[in-house]
Amino acid sequence: MLGRTYDDQVCSIARSLEVLGERWTLLIVRDTLLGLRRFDDIQRSLGVARNVLTDRLGRLVEAGVLERVPYQQRPPRHEYQLTPIGRELAIPVVSLMHWGDRHLAGPAGPPRLTLHHDCGGPLQATLTCTKCGQQVAPGSMDVIPGPGLQPAPAGKDEQEQA
Amino acid sequence: MLGRTYDDQVCSIARSLEVLGERWTLLIVRDTLLGLRRFDDIQRSLGVARNVLTDRLGRLVEAGVLERVPYQQRPPRHEYQLTPIGRELAIPVVSLMHWGDRHLAGPAGPPRLTLHHDCGGPLQATLTCTKCGQQVAPGSMDVIPGPGLQPAPAGKDEQEQA
Repeated sequence: MLGRTYDDQVCSIARSLEVLGERWTLLIVRDTLLGLRRFDDIQRSLGVARNVLTDRLGRLVEAGVLERVPYQQRPPRHEYQLTPIGRELAIPVVSLMHWGDRHLAGPAGPPRLTLHHDCGGPLQATLTCTKCGQQVAPGSMDVIPGPGLQPAPAGKDEQEQA
Repeated sequence: MLGRTYDDQVCSIARSLEVLGERWTLLIVRDTLLGLRRFDDIQRSLGVARNVLTDRLGRLVEAGVLERVPYQQRPPRHEYQLTPIGRELAIPVVSLMHWGDRHLAGPAGPPRLTLHHDCGGPLQATLTCTKCGQQVAPGSMDVIPGPGLQPAPAGKDEQEQA
């Protein structure tokens, strides 16, 4: 997405940023999470150039974050819907929003509130332990090497070294 | 940070991206979350040009995400430490990492694992309701206008309209 800016980084954050890190891309995801689906609505919301928006939407479709779905036959018209993979971006996007609410919103306060549909309570993004169920402060998180840490072997693509 | 790319957006995601959305910036935050503090260590980890790294570190210090702390007097040397505000980025960064782990890591699996220090269980980023305590699926989140939604009045800076 960024011309593989982070190609040497064996890291899921870098890989996510290859998909999402281009200017406007994460705000397009925000708009679709907020329910916008049509090109003109997203364009109006962002005030971005139409050719840039076309490019970013195409890349998000390629990456499996958005799906292009026909909503009208004559003339043919499409809208952009989040895939299940795209919908999972709600958590990073909302936690980034809450960080901005706390530190960048100023005295006017948060532009948007995120509430629990069932009880109306304010939501908070947290780290939760899937074993003991506790909420975990970032200081109580250990980060250790995982199975995917080694870079791919130097051999080209599918070529075997045998 | 991005030359105020998103200046018209009254949105905490856009404001966060003004601070964090420049290339390399979020990977610098990742490195400092992983414990790197010195210019040369971060430079080696990222393979980024030194002038770009200098620029990005300076902007993160300006934004209050990093603090420049002396660790040696003769000759004077500084390292970069996350502030409490910077440390709060662990949740968006880890949730972005988990998204990449699930959808972009391929068969090799996650490059890094995030575990609960106390019990060793794998962590998960979640949305939690601060009123009823439930974990909330993104589909059960309502987003409503908050107090800061209106753009600032047209009057310049501190100038009163009286």
